[in-house]
Amino acid sequence: MEGLRILTNNHELFMKEALRLAAKARGMTSPNPMVGAVIVKDGIIIAKDYHRRVGELHAEASVISKAGKNTKGSILYVTLEPCCHKDKRTSPCTEAIIKAEIKSVVIAMEDPNPKVSGRGIKILRRQGIEVGSGILEDKAKRLNEAYIKYITAKIPFVTLKVAMTLDGKIATPEGQSRWITGEEARRTVHLMRGSVDAILTAVGTVKADNPELTARIAGRALTLARSPKRVVIDPDLEIPLNYKVFKLPPETIVATRKGQESRVESREMREEKIKALISKGVKIIEYEGERLYLKWLMKKLGEMEITSVMIEGGSSLSAYALQDGMVDKVVFFIAPKIIGGKESMPAIGGTLYKRLQDAYRIHNINIKRVGEDLMIEGYIH
Amino acid sequence: MEGLRILTNNHELFMKEALRLAAKARGMTSPNPMVGAVIVKDGIIIAKDYHRRVGELHAEASVISKAGKNTKGSILYVTLEPCCHKDKRTSPCTEAIIKAEIKSVVIAMEDPNPKVSGRGIKILRRQGIEVGSGILEDKAKRLNEAYIKYITAKIPFVTLKVAMTLDGKIATPEGQSRWITGEEARRTVHLMRGSVDAILTAVGTVKADNPELTARIAGRALTLARSPKRVVIDPDLEIPLNYKVFKLPPETIVATRKGQESRVESREMREEKIKALISKGVKIIEYEGERLYLKWLMKKLGEMEITSVMIEGGSSLSAYALQDGMVDKVVFFIAPKIIGGKESMPAIGGTLYKRLQDAYRIHNINIKRVGEDLMIEGYIH
Repeated sequence: MEGLRILTNNHELFMKEALRLAAKARGMTSPNPMVGAVIVKDGIIIAKDYHRRVGELHAEASVISKAGKNTKGSILYVTLEPCCHKDKRTSPCTEAIIKAEIKSVVIAMEDPNPKVSGRGIKILRRQGIEVGSGILEDKAKRLNEAYIKYITAKIPFVTLKVAMTLDGKIATPEGQSRWITGEEARRTVHLMRGSVDAILTAVGTVKADNPELTARIAGRALTLARSPKRVVIDPDLEIPLNYKVFKLPPETIVATRKGQESRVESREMREEKIKALISKGVKIIEYEGERLYLKWLMKKLGEMEITSVMIEGGSSLSAYALQDGMVDKVVFFIAPKIIGGKESMPAIGGTLYKRLQDAYRIHNINIKRVGEDLMIEGYIH
Repeated sequence: MEGLRILTNNHELFMKEALRLAAKARGMTSPNPMVGAVIVKDGIIIAKDYHRRVGELHAEASVISKAGKNTKGSILYVTLEPCCHKDKRTSPCTEAIIKAEIKSVVIAMEDPNPKVSGRGIKILRRQGIEVGSGILEDKAKRLNEAYIKYITAKIPFVTLKVAMTLDGKIATPEGQSRWITGEEARRTVHLMRGSVDAILTAVGTVKADNPELTARIAGRALTLARSPKRVVIDPDLEIPLNYKVFKLPPETIVATRKGQESRVESREMREEKIKALISKGVKIIEYEGERLYLKWLMKKLGEMEITSVMIEGGSSLSAYALQDGMVDKVVFFIAPKIIGGKESMPAIGGTLYKRLQDAYRIHNINIKRVGEDLMIEGYIH
């Protein structure tokens, strides 16, 4: 950061503002990242903005246009390295920055997109613009954790959500699970749904509760503009056609076992059900083999430009997701309740388990109180 | 608190000091409460002390003796209402206070002991001493939560300790449970053991791990003076005689099924095993019927002047303790690990379970990080 004539804590201050702006578009920019930008001249913010949704102006372009003719000699704070590639709807932000005669650019993190990945910085420096990087980098990386995963691995960032009692149960042996957590925790889940591209669940959960699996607050859709897609694993197509997940929009994708006769119905009835689903607008993904490998599914979802998935299933789906190495982040809501019972549904089930020395380890744990409940989140590397 | 010529926050300051002193005797005073006292004259502490162990001076008597001839017109801060009854080793503290010509007494909480219960305060007031009560009362009550329960209910205060993975498991299906939590959590458990009168466990845990169940830090006994008793439920006397729980001291009490032939051995062999245990110094409690009701056991332990018990057992014992309504406090250590498996041991097992609306509710939850693990504690009313 040599040569910049302002103090480091000012950098953080302005970057914080840029990050705050970026986060306002949570859930709206996919498959793009969230980006915020601020232009500072003589120590004063003269323009600020963020990338509002895919297809619209990038944060840098927008903030430069807002600042008008005032940008010469200014400092641009931007939460992600400016883009430099031309194979997209908007022109490269590096060009706009150079044209605006901006003196310095401070960025939070490099763009992991292989098409950028430090090249944006190089282009700017070649033009004599000083570029500093790494201000509030951790926060910027967390903000765009889904984008980072998707742009590098081509599969979605997967969050496993669990709502359990203090003794680790997600349902009684009879399947009662409504409600384990309180209103505020459920509200938080709806906000989380609103920030992902898709919710993944399985036939058991849908049959048990007939959930809508939409992002709502107090019964109303969270944003009119955007609701996550619903992905339902239903090998034998057991979910009745009149269930709420088949009330579109939002889009529903059903992953089902290919070809072979269903355990439940004949092949003809199965074909007919698929036709009925398609006519309702439901997308069908068929997989081969006895069980659906989540790695395969995630690749499929990645191809559909789904960059982030939240798993809200039962004991088994959660176990499979972990087994298949597909979980990036876990969010456990813990209710201050104990129900007991060795036959009650455990948070993570499955026929396999880990020995203690091989357990899935959760890192960077964060704990919050959410109403009467606790929320523990962390990452699996 | 009318008429006292010092500010309220000073009251809290001095009471805080008295509470800090009281807590120094944690684990040493049972069946007495922990009590700390401070004498203040002209705004300065002239003497401070605490009740060090049962049979020794009460905090008030000790602090008055320390202050010497200086007590006239002073203020005594004491964490518990001074005693006024004569049926014990030491003379009533009320008498000592009156004799010392102390002007004012500030107490944190009334003594719930039916023999005191406000009478100490009345006696002091009758002598023209001004008495204020309720300063840092919550803290004082928490400090002596075991004493309060025991002196009023005649059964011990019961803490249920659980060490589990984030997904609520205490062992793999094969019974592997060492170690779920890290070193600091285990250290904390040993400190907790050092503060209770007895640890309660059951045959399954002892047979699986052959634990010592003593209070140790880095392999060394926590206090030479005092170690909790070990209470082991072993209906059929299955624990081998050479197991560590039978290496005395500390004292071990075995609760076993009365009379009838054991499932494992003949009546003669059983009688012989009891004899062998008794000759080792082990105490035997025999119960009637198919299962041991923990309420019955706690009454027995109360009669033995055990005022506090920490349960460190398996899935079933924890479940029975909750079912029998015997748990006052829960302390869950949660390791940032997931092992999964529907056959893994749940934190709370048992054949019975609660529906969500009837779940055991945990109140006054407190969360701490203990090394890499989390500790969640709370109360069941």
